[in-house]
Amino acid sequence: MHHTLYHKQLGSGSRKEDTQTLPLRKEKVVAMSKTKLHSRPPSLSRDKSVFIAAAITVLLVCVIWSFTGTFSNFPTLFSSDCSGSPGQFFNRADDPQETTFYDDPEISYTVDGNPIKNWDEKRKEWLKLHPTFAAGVQNRMLLLTGSQPSPCKNPSGDHLLLRCFKNKVDYCRIHGCDVFYNNAYLNPKMKSYWAKIPLIRASMLAHPEAEWIWWMDSDAIFTDMDFKVPLRRYKHHNFVVHGWPNLIYEKKSWVAVNAGIFLIRNCQWSMEFLEAWARMGPQSPEYARWGQTLRSTFKDKMFPESDDQSALVYLLLKEKKKWGDMMYVENEYSLHGYWVAVVGRIDNITGRYEKIEKQEVKLRRRHAEAVGERYGKLWEEHLEDAGDRKGGWRRPFITHFTGCQPCSGDHNPSYVGKDCWVGMERALNFADNQVLRNFGFVHPDLRNGSVSPLAFDFPGAEASEDSLA
Amino acid sequence: MHHTLYHKQLGSGSRKEDTQTLPLRKEKVVAMSKTKLHSRPPSLSRDKSVFIAAAITVLLVCVIWSFTGTFSNFPTLFSSDCSGSPGQFFNRADDPQETTFYDDPEISYTVDGNPIKNWDEKRKEWLKLHPTFAAGVQNRMLLLTGSQPSPCKNPSGDHLLLRCFKNKVDYCRIHGCDVFYNNAYLNPKMKSYWAKIPLIRASMLAHPEAEWIWWMDSDAIFTDMDFKVPLRRYKHHNFVVHGWPNLIYEKKSWVAVNAGIFLIRNCQWSMEFLEAWARMGPQSPEYARWGQTLRSTFKDKMFPESDDQSALVYLLLKEKKKWGDMMYVENEYSLHGYWVAVVGRIDNITGRYEKIEKQEVKLRRRHAEAVGERYGKLWEEHLEDAGDRKGGWRRPFITHFTGCQPCSGDHNPSYVGKDCWVGMERALNFADNQVLRNFGFVHPDLRNGSVSPLAFDFPGAEASEDSLA
Repeated sequence: MHHTLYHKQLGSGSRKEDTQTLPLRKEKVVAMSKTKLHSRPPSLSRDKSVFIAAAITVLLVCVIWSFTGTFSNFPTLFSSDCSGSPGQFFNRADDPQETTFYDDPEISYTVDGNPIKNWDEKRKEWLKLHPTFAAGVQNRMLLLTGSQPSPCKNPSGDHLLLRCFKNKVDYCRIHGCDVFYNNAYLNPKMKSYWAKIPLIRASMLAHPEAEWIWWMDSDAIFTDMDFKVPLRRYKHHNFVVHGWPNLIYEKKSWVAVNAGIFLIRNCQWSMEFLEAWARMGPQSPEYARWGQTLRSTFKDKMFPESDDQSALVYLLLKEKKKWGDMMYVENEYSLHGYWVAVVGRIDNITGRYEKIEKQEVKLRRRHAEAVGERYGKLWEEHLEDAGDRKGGWRRPFITHFTGCQPCSGDHNPSYVGKDCWVGMERALNFADNQVLRNFGFVHPDLRNGSVSPLAFDFPGAEASEDSLA
Repeated sequence: MHHTLYHKQLGSGSRKEDTQTLPLRKEKVVAMSKTKLHSRPPSLSRDKSVFIAAAITVLLVCVIWSFTGTFSNFPTLFSSDCSGSPGQFFNRADDPQETTFYDDPEISYTVDGNPIKNWDEKRKEWLKLHPTFAAGVQNRMLLLTGSQPSPCKNPSGDHLLLRCFKNKVDYCRIHGCDVFYNNAYLNPKMKSYWAKIPLIRASMLAHPEAEWIWWMDSDAIFTDMDFKVPLRRYKHHNFVVHGWPNLIYEKKSWVAVNAGIFLIRNCQWSMEFLEAWARMGPQSPEYARWGQTLRSTFKDKMFPESDDQSALVYLLLKEKKKWGDMMYVENEYSLHGYWVAVVGRIDNITGRYEKIEKQEVKLRRRHAEAVGERYGKLWEEHLEDAGDRKGGWRRPFITHFTGCQPCSGDHNPSYVGKDCWVGMERALNFADNQVLRNFGFVHPDLRNGSVSPLAFDFPGAEASEDSLA
């Protein structure tokens, strides 16, 4: 499924390039310099040799060391002795003396109206000085999430936030991404949905080794622990958000995208985009004016204040060449799955997956959590026709409890009674079953957190016999 | 400081070996087979070549690929194409077909009275089949923590648990360890302080790539983000806990150690130890009898039920050769720092560190969070005489809010008023300042969560000028 999508998308991607007009070139080149970082023949070969030479050197030093050293050095091949980070190739214990952007007093971590200049080159220089982080940089993601500094008004609010955070840490442990949970307002005037902008800006500087910054609202959870973001699909883009192009460009709706979950590339374009986005926020002198502009632009926006999502759609719509064309509006999988459309399908999805597992012994094989991606790949061929939109039965990648407001508890009045909390409990246990399984346990009833040991070979014949026995 | 400690400890470690009697041999050999896994000459060279050949092969495949492939393959050197895990050396996308312990129906994830046999050999076989995880295995840690499945009774309980979890995720992001948060009772009869035992047992099977399982109570937080556990010190031990030998062997006190934080090696000895420990728990027919035995053994134990900590001290004391000698009772640094002794020292500690930073420009240098270990190393020479016991001014590694019971709120009556909550707020912000600093921000007042941008070169002269300006 995804494979065909790559081609489809790359095709349209190239079309975009062909139709570019000159004003777009600058941004496009910036974007290219990230995706095709080193793609110009001379620099390509030079950078390659820098990285590879460094990588091989580190390896050989470790190998020679392990041969000549005492036993105790051997198992630490690639570990603290050689990399500073146990069992990883990263060298966390080294920071060369050469000057980098960190030594420049003019460069600040804040969104303050004067963005960094030449960030792509500065970041590239840092990566050259840190080859173990440069290796594989194109696919490295830092997941950001967070919530308010004070306790939630809703009595079960913080409990739900805790479990939503656990869910994100589970996903990133399985796939090897870093997670940062923020519960400080980095800019006191940028609260709630504006708080992520200064955090993303600071994280781009704090994590030059991350190619992508992945923002996820605290009330969004992973409901398919196997699915991996198809980064190759976005090689010509700097921003990925779930949405519907016709709602942006025809309907002009402020809900055409969901700004609660998105990927933003760690590059110069993004530095400038964040400044433009922040100009529409509550800390900006233009805030009130933007409120009017956005409300008059989007007929379905019912509240007067400028909000991050309307602001995003506005930039997509009105500055298409500068911003819109570098943004990938995704709807082929649930980067943002609306909880109302998901929760009712969970039982059917569970049933469909079990049916397949009953037939495929490979999929039932017990394994270490650390090699879970192997089984995610095996699943793909069985999910080609599943689909996770309406009527589909594929696990939605991310289920987002928009409007539920777990922390304040003041959910959208259109949601009946306990729908939000019952739905979150079910979705969290559904997700947790995909994790607990590799620890030998299962939540038999998604309505509560109780667990039982999982029979060997579940849900195969042998397991059923066990249950009967 | 630590260096000398290694030697000191290794010395005593060897002395322990010399004084072994035959009955201890079996366990000792098992322990060695973990630390000296492959130390026998023939197998040593054989295993070495397996690992190194595999490591070099993976590297070369990637290198050749990157040279022959299109540009887009190059940045993914070590990434999904070559390892399945972006930017890491781990191959998460491969699980060879060869049979392992996972395929054995007799092996279960539960603590059930019949422990796994030959776990060291089974785990070693798995590692041979997964060379990218075998590399560096000796230093790999999985941090486990967790809390109850339902919301806390204390209104701010879950908020505090959320921040304590964030603190652990911060530490492991900086140092590259995995974290698993559990909020299910894997054995419904093993609640509160007994719940960790079935979790550790299941995690040892789910994570054969982890040499150490690190349990940390939800109310324990890292207050020195730089400090790294000196694993080399424990190479001849399988269990590390904070405590005082004289309180175990002379005073016979149930508070001689703190069972809320410990390291346990992923090995056969530990499988058997967990069974012995669990036999004293509430799911065991011997529970009531153990309650009496423990109470009569420890004069200072005031409650009748068998508890995990008294049980641990009992095994150390009464089965010294079988269990005690493989346990390292640590008190050279705060693996468990008692919060009452820490909270009042935070301001003095902050002052002492700032004074050093004012003099050492190297320590003030801004840097990527990912290379923080470099600066932790630079700090060590300045902390040789600090010490984090009474009167010391080194940041305590871990501060444990024992007795505060943040979730239930029913703290030990001997703690006055809000001491627990005020203390946790201060400690959490003190720790968070060590993290936020690499994002360019600081909590100026540890009493609340508000933050301000950090001036360039803080706390150097230039920064002060900025502040004045």
